[in-house]
Amino acid sequence: MGYKKFDEQDLAYLKELIRDEERVLAGNEINEEYSHDELSGTSSYPDVVIKVKSAGEISEIMKYAGKHRIPVTPRGAGTGLVGASVAMEHGIMVDTTLMNHILELDEDNLTITVEPGVLLMELAAYVEEHDLFYPPDPGEKSATIGGNISTNAGGMRAVKYGVTRDYVMGLEVVLPDGKITWFGGKVVKNSSGYDLKDLMIGSEGTLGFITKAILKLLPLPKKIISLLVPFPSLQKAIDTVPEIIRSKALPTAVEFMQREVIEDAEEYLGKSFPDKQSDAYLLLKFDGNTTEEVERLYDRVARLCLEQGALDVLISDTEEREESIWKARGAFLEAIKGSTTYMDEVDMVVPRSHVNEMVTYLHSIQKEVEIRIKSFGHAGDGNLHAYVLRDGLSDEVWEQRMHEAMEKIYQKARKLGGQVSGEHGIGFAKKPYLKESLPEASLRLMNGIKKVFDPENILNPHKISEE
Amino acid sequence: MGYKKFDEQDLAYLKELIRDEERVLAGNEINEEYSHDELSGTSSYPDVVIKVKSAGEISEIMKYAGKHRIPVTPRGAGTGLVGASVAMEHGIMVDTTLMNHILELDEDNLTITVEPGVLLMELAAYVEEHDLFYPPDPGEKSATIGGNISTNAGGMRAVKYGVTRDYVMGLEVVLPDGKITWFGGKVVKNSSGYDLKDLMIGSEGTLGFITKAILKLLPLPKKIISLLVPFPSLQKAIDTVPEIIRSKALPTAVEFMQREVIEDAEEYLGKSFPDKQSDAYLLLKFDGNTTEEVERLYDRVARLCLEQGALDVLISDTEEREESIWKARGAFLEAIKGSTTYMDEVDMVVPRSHVNEMVTYLHSIQKEVEIRIKSFGHAGDGNLHAYVLRDGLSDEVWEQRMHEAMEKIYQKARKLGGQVSGEHGIGFAKKPYLKESLPEASLRLMNGIKKVFDPENILNPHKISEE
Repeated sequence: MGYKKFDEQDLAYLKELIRDEERVLAGNEINEEYSHDELSGTSSYPDVVIKVKSAGEISEIMKYAGKHRIPVTPRGAGTGLVGASVAMEHGIMVDTTLMNHILELDEDNLTITVEPGVLLMELAAYVEEHDLFYPPDPGEKSATIGGNISTNAGGMRAVKYGVTRDYVMGLEVVLPDGKITWFGGKVVKNSSGYDLKDLMIGSEGTLGFITKAILKLLPLPKKIISLLVPFPSLQKAIDTVPEIIRSKALPTAVEFMQREVIEDAEEYLGKSFPDKQSDAYLLLKFDGNTTEEVERLYDRVARLCLEQGALDVLISDTEEREESIWKARGAFLEAIKGSTTYMDEVDMVVPRSHVNEMVTYLHSIQKEVEIRIKSFGHAGDGNLHAYVLRDGLSDEVWEQRMHEAMEKIYQKARKLGGQVSGEHGIGFAKKPYLKESLPEASLRLMNGIKKVFDPENILNPHKISEE
Repeated sequence: MGYKKFDEQDLAYLKELIRDEERVLAGNEINEEYSHDELSGTSSYPDVVIKVKSAGEISEIMKYAGKHRIPVTPRGAGTGLVGASVAMEHGIMVDTTLMNHILELDEDNLTITVEPGVLLMELAAYVEEHDLFYPPDPGEKSATIGGNISTNAGGMRAVKYGVTRDYVMGLEVVLPDGKITWFGGKVVKNSSGYDLKDLMIGSEGTLGFITKAILKLLPLPKKIISLLVPFPSLQKAIDTVPEIIRSKALPTAVEFMQREVIEDAEEYLGKSFPDKQSDAYLLLKFDGNTTEEVERLYDRVARLCLEQGALDVLISDTEEREESIWKARGAFLEAIKGSTTYMDEVDMVVPRSHVNEMVTYLHSIQKEVEIRIKSFGHAGDGNLHAYVLRDGLSDEVWEQRMHEAMEKIYQKARKLGGQVSGEHGIGFAKKPYLKESLPEASLRLMNGIKKVFDPENILNPHKISEE
C-alpha cells in the first residue's frame, strides 16, 4: 500500500510529543495482546503503541502519520471479534483505555458525556447510581464504549430498546487529517445536513477517531423480572420466539440457550445454573415501573410458552437468581472458547420471523460439514452468535470445514433477508462475506465515503470493505 | 452549472418512456403548485413533471438525465417548508404521489413496507386498524412518508419515541446513476459496513430516490391521555418544561402554545378550543397500556405543573376532546399563515434544558427587531417552530428585518448548543444558516459524500450544503 516503514526517527518524534515514557511502547514493550483481538484469527503487531490521554494528542499523531504515510490503528479494550483493532499494516496503534473519564452527567437533558475508554460496566454502574439507565447491553461488559460505538454493538436489550446507535446523540471526532470536530450534539432532533454522526457509528475506526460521546439515558426501570423457560427440544423453544414477537408483548430481551452451552458456562464460572432439567431454554426479561405492569407483560408470554410446549416457567425475581442467570449468559463466549482448542464466530442477523429457521439450520449443518457448532444469542432480535469449534482438527481440515460452514451459514442468512453482522462488525475477518452479501453499489459508495474521510488511507487500513 | 436546456427531444423521449400522457406534464400543464413548496419563498418551475409509478421508471429517467445532464428534482406532496423539492435548475421533476401503495404489513416482524407517496395520515390509520403504531407524528399529516424520511421529520411524539430515523429499517433507493439498490432491511440489528441507510434519511432527495421503505412498528398503546395545562404567563409555562424532563416522567409529547396562536387556529378551523382562560399552555400527552399506568405517569407531572404555578390541569380523556385539542395543534402552521400576509420559518433545535431560554429570547426580539414572531412547538424535545410574520411591511423593510431576526435566532441557537433544523431540513432556504452553523470539516465531508453518490450533480442540485 506504499506505507512508510516506521523507524527510530518516528519513534523519537512520538516520544517527544507524548513526553511520558510509560505511554509510548515499542519493540519488546508491546504486549502480545496488542497483536490480536479476542478471537485471534487475525494477528499483526503494531510498531508502536501510544496510550493517549486527549483528542489533542490523537490529532498530533494523525497529522504526523498523514505527513509521513504511517498507518494508525485505533484500539479500545481489544475485546472485538473480527480483527477491526488489529494493526494489519503495523505502524502506530492508538490505545484509548486511559481516556476513561466520565465527563458530565446532565440530568436536565438526560445525557452523559464520556471519553471513549470508559468501560461498558463502568458506565452502566455509574448511571444506575443516579437512577438512570443506559439500555445497550452487549455481553462483553469490559468492552469500551468507544468500541461499542465503533461496531454499533447491540446486546440483549435490543428487542425493546434498540442498539448503541439509538443512544449516541453526539460525537467528538478526530478526523484522519487531524482536525477535531463534532457530529451531532445534545439535541433530540436534528435535520441539519447529512447524518455524519450515524456514519461514524459502526465505522469500526476507519473514518475517524471517537474522542468524546454524548449518550442518551432513560429513567431506570423500577422493576425487572426474568423468566427462564425450559423446553423439551430446541425446535420447540425456538419456534416459540416468533409467537412471542407476534403477541406484541414487547419483552426487553429474548435469549435462547442450550444445555451444552450452559454446562460450559457452569464450568467456566464454577457456579451452577438454576435449572438443568432441559435441553433448550428461552430466557426472557421484562421491565417496567411497577410489579403489576411487569406481571401483566410476562403473564401473557408465560402462558404462550406453556401453550407452545414449555415444561415450566421459572420466574426469577430475586437479585441473586437474576445475577446467576445473566452472569452465565454473559460468560457464554468465554465459556465456549474454553471448551475447545480454537474457534471462529458468525454474527449474522436475520429478520426475527426467520430466527427459528436459522437456528435449525445451524444445528443441521454440523452433521453435513462434520464440525461442531455452538450457538446462542438474541433470538428476539434475530441476531445469532454461532461458534464454529476446531476441537482436534488438523490445520487443513479445520480451514476447509470452517470456511465451508461459514459460507453455508452466510448464504442461508442472505436467503432469509439477513446481513453478515448484527453487532460484531466486519473488521478484517469478515470482509469476504460482506462482499458476497452487499450489492456492488453499496460497496462502491462505502469505498467512496472512506476516500472522502481519509484520502491517504492512513486510518485503520484493510478493514470493512477495503482490500 | 452547465446543465443542458431541456428541449422538445427530451420531452419526446420521456413521453415515449412513460407512455401515459396524463403522467407527463409540460408547459401550461404544469400547475403553479409545482413551482414552490408550502412556504413559497423559493420559486422555480420545472420543465416537465413526471408522475412516476415505479422504481423502474425513475431508474430510466435518471439514466437519461445523467446522460444528457438534465437536473432531476424529487417531489412528494410538496408540503416542505425550505424549498427542498423546488426545481432550482428547472429540468425534470419526479412526482411520487402515485407511488402510494402499502405493499406489505408483516406482523411477524412488526414492519410495514410502503411506497414513498403514501401519506402520513394513511399510514397511521392503516396500522392502527391492525392494532399497531407508527410513532413519528409530524403536524402535517398530508405529507408523504418519502418526504418525512427525506427530512427526518420528528413530530410531537419524539420526546418518548424518537424521530422518523428511528423507525426506518430499510430503503429501496434509485441512485443518481439509475441503479436500484437496497440499504438496510428487515433486520433489527446491523453492523455490516457503513450506515448508508441513515445517510439517506434526512438527505432531502440529494443522494438518491427513495422508492420503498420498510418501517418499524410498535404495539399500539391501549390508553392515551392528554393534559391541557393553563399557566398565568408564558414564562411560567416554559420554565416548567425542564422540570418535567428532570422528573423522568417520560411523557409522549410536551407542546407549548400561546393564546394568540390558539385563536388563529380557532378561526382557521371554525371550531372553538376547550379552554381560553390563559395566555400560555402546555399540552402534554401520556400513553401506556392501562389506565393505572398512564395515571401514575401523569399524576406526578400534573402535581409538578401545579407546584410551578399552573392555574389548572384539564384532563382530556374523551376521544372528542382529544381530537379538538390536537386538531387545533395540527392546524397551527396553516392558521398562523392565514393570520398574516406572508411569513418565513425557523425550525431550530436546542438542548431541552435551554428550551425556556430560547422561547423567552424569541419573544424578546420581537420588540428589538420590530417584527411579529409567533412560535409554538415541541417544548419537550427542544425543537421550536418560530414564524416571522410580514404583515404590512414593505418589501425592503421585510427583507431586512426578517433576515435580522433569523440571524439573531440562529445565533442564539448556536450559543445554546443547538442546530439549524430539528426536522424541516435545510433545503434551499436555510443553506446560509447551515454554513454559519456547521464546522468547515462537516461541510467538506458533506460535499464530498454528495460527489460520491452523484458525481455529475444531477439529483436535486443547490440543496443542503451545495452552492
